[in-house]
Amino acid sequence: MATPSRAPDPSPASAAAPMRLSVLGATGSVGGSTLDLVAREPERFHVVALTAATNAAALAAAARAVRAEVAVVADPAAYADLADRLAGTGIAAAAGPEAVVEAARRPTDMVVSAIVGAAGLAPSLAALSATRTLALANKETLVTAGVCFMAEAARRGVTVLPVDSEHNAIFQVLERHAEREVAEIVLTASGGPFRTLSTEAIAAATPAMALRHPNWSMGRKITIDSATLMNKGLELIEADHLFAVGPDRLSVLVHPQSVVHGMVRYTDGSILAELGSPDMRTPIGYCLAWPERRPTPVKPLDLAALGTLTFEAPDRGRFPCLALAEAAMRRGDGAPSVLNAANEIAVEAFLDGRIGFMGIPGLVERTLSWAEGAGMMREPASLGEALDLDAASRGRAAAFIG
Amino acid sequence: MATPSRAPDPSPASAAAPMRLSVLGATGSVGGSTLDLVAREPERFHVVALTAATNAAALAAAARAVRAEVAVVADPAAYADLADRLAGTGIAAAAGPEAVVEAARRPTDMVVSAIVGAAGLAPSLAALSATRTLALANKETLVTAGVCFMAEAARRGVTVLPVDSEHNAIFQVLERHAEREVAEIVLTASGGPFRTLSTEAIAAATPAMALRHPNWSMGRKITIDSATLMNKGLELIEADHLFAVGPDRLSVLVHPQSVVHGMVRYTDGSILAELGSPDMRTPIGYCLAWPERRPTPVKPLDLAALGTLTFEAPDRGRFPCLALAEAAMRRGDGAPSVLNAANEIAVEAFLDGRIGFMGIPGLVERTLSWAEGAGMMREPASLGEALDLDAASRGRAAAFIG
Repeated sequence: MATPSRAPDPSPASAAAPMRLSVLGATGSVGGSTLDLVAREPERFHVVALTAATNAAALAAAARAVRAEVAVVADPAAYADLADRLAGTGIAAAAGPEAVVEAARRPTDMVVSAIVGAAGLAPSLAALSATRTLALANKETLVTAGVCFMAEAARRGVTVLPVDSEHNAIFQVLERHAEREVAEIVLTASGGPFRTLSTEAIAAATPAMALRHPNWSMGRKITIDSATLMNKGLELIEADHLFAVGPDRLSVLVHPQSVVHGMVRYTDGSILAELGSPDMRTPIGYCLAWPERRPTPVKPLDLAALGTLTFEAPDRGRFPCLALAEAAMRRGDGAPSVLNAANEIAVEAFLDGRIGFMGIPGLVERTLSWAEGAGMMREPASLGEALDLDAASRGRAAAFIG
Repeated sequence: MATPSRAPDPSPASAAAPMRLSVLGATGSVGGSTLDLVAREPERFHVVALTAATNAAALAAAARAVRAEVAVVADPAAYADLADRLAGTGIAAAAGPEAVVEAARRPTDMVVSAIVGAAGLAPSLAALSATRTLALANKETLVTAGVCFMAEAARRGVTVLPVDSEHNAIFQVLERHAEREVAEIVLTASGGPFRTLSTEAIAAATPAMALRHPNWSMGRKITIDSATLMNKGLELIEADHLFAVGPDRLSVLVHPQSVVHGMVRYTDGSILAELGSPDMRTPIGYCLAWPERRPTPVKPLDLAALGTLTFEAPDRGRFPCLALAEAAMRRGDGAPSVLNAANEIAVEAFLDGRIGFMGIPGLVERTLSWAEGAGMMREPASLGEALDLDAASRGRAAAFIG
């Protein structure tokens, strides 16, 4: 009987087995950038599941392009359309929020969690049960359930890689170092469209004015959050969960060009920073290749052509949302969930013309006071508790406007 | 007979044995900064040898302050003074260039090689024989004997840590990554005092004008090299030996504030950079603590107070020394040694008023042409060959002036 001959060890770059990958929120901005990178190196990936909220046409097209095993749309009413578009392809179709969670539980090497909003919470948590690495772009997971989510990731031994350009930057210059070597973690903020306006001009701002973001093309909700600096506040809360250096070592620096995405200052005086073009394919590509790096089609940053980078301290007087978020981060015990829920209601009301721009921090502050007074502040011990606190806070914030 | 009891494993941070450290060039700027850090944590270090060129008084004071085993002055005429000042301290005194080399060969965990100029070559090479880590601040070692020095370090298994702020910055953001992941290594340059001057104004520059460096306080030779951009050219050659990515992936970016010390651009689009205050205790502290980091007394960089960082491409037309150095790097085969030797003679002549500012690149170019024509260009295979080429080039450059 002949001894089976052993193949030579495959080179890690080429002959390794394809990565089993699912993308939750495949038709959004982060999902689209992820699939753009996947489509450029199809041999590197085996796509397991793609999910989307409602857009069956875009989801079916994406699933066909990368030959996914299954495509799931959260909206049950879109099922027939999705199934129709996937007929004969061998790609399974499913629908409904439970089907999205089930798709997240399919065994993979990596899940990119890019669902926007509270809808991303349950699938992100579910993904921890059957993957090795979670590339997390969903803010709400950390803001409203950060403690129990990170504990579950640690218990399962899942690596959480941040996709957000700021947190990804910090991760890139932090990962090797011991916590005691870190003096300060700095998130940069563009400052938003109202950076140079007076308090009076900011108070008179309209939705159209707030929706003009200087550097990044994003959704409406996050663009308003960028104008109030609440976005940076939510990112501080995320950073608190991701990097665990404590609120005293987390800070925000306004940097209008958005070229430096994040920095870590060490106790020896060195600051390490990540810089790049405003293209999400850099942080997503970093996650997909981690712990290696692989080429992306991102245009290299040309600092000589750019010329000037500027930095300034944030003004919490004109942008009280930042101070509210910082206080909620320090308060803990569910305060970030209340803050986030109230902010979502406030931004919606601002976009609908029901409250003014400074009504956003006003409503958030009022809802936080109510939650404190009503004894609602305690750390959610489960996804259920986090969602309950979120719902109660939304209800109360809506009633305050109503 | 009792079995000797084994002590428990010491914690790496506190109970580890002191690091056996020698500092070559202990009375210069880098040596002084090194000993400043040593004196702040005396329990971490056992200082083996300190050396200096001529200053017996400063050397004796340094050796007493850190309780060195031996102090060596290169100038034999300074021996009596040194021995006198160390009498009764238990610190051995020695003198002469051979004694410096012998001191470098004493067994240590780390040697900081901070001798300025060609005198640092033999001690740096000698240090490789009996240490584990060489923190290298001597430029000439890599510029004139880089190939044989790095080969010897590799053969001996010695880690070479760069002390220069630019190379240290690059090392900090490079070390984990595979060479194939690097798109470009960027050295920043202040641009020197003549950055904004016209070609005519530069040609008319006096030594006094050239000696006003905007950001760093340095010796006269290196300050002139900073004004011609030859310093950056020599640093490119050093980087070529230290980081081995090839000349095509090494570049220079003018950054007048000297806050960003170096950058690495990766193939995924991320640029990682190191930033800091202009204080050599940051890179030296990094070397002393490597691969960990420990606090230094360096004032933290305040980017908000600083406000603005600018970047521009270097102008090789007004600063031909940079182009000459780049060409020598690509040429290899000893061309960097010839360049460096001719430049030292040229800078001396400029400071003495014997040639003009643009005579510096003129003399370097003429000496390189002579070496090419005379068949002198070949990679020095030993320290002796490197020193021979250096001496021949100096002689010829001096003759061209004379």
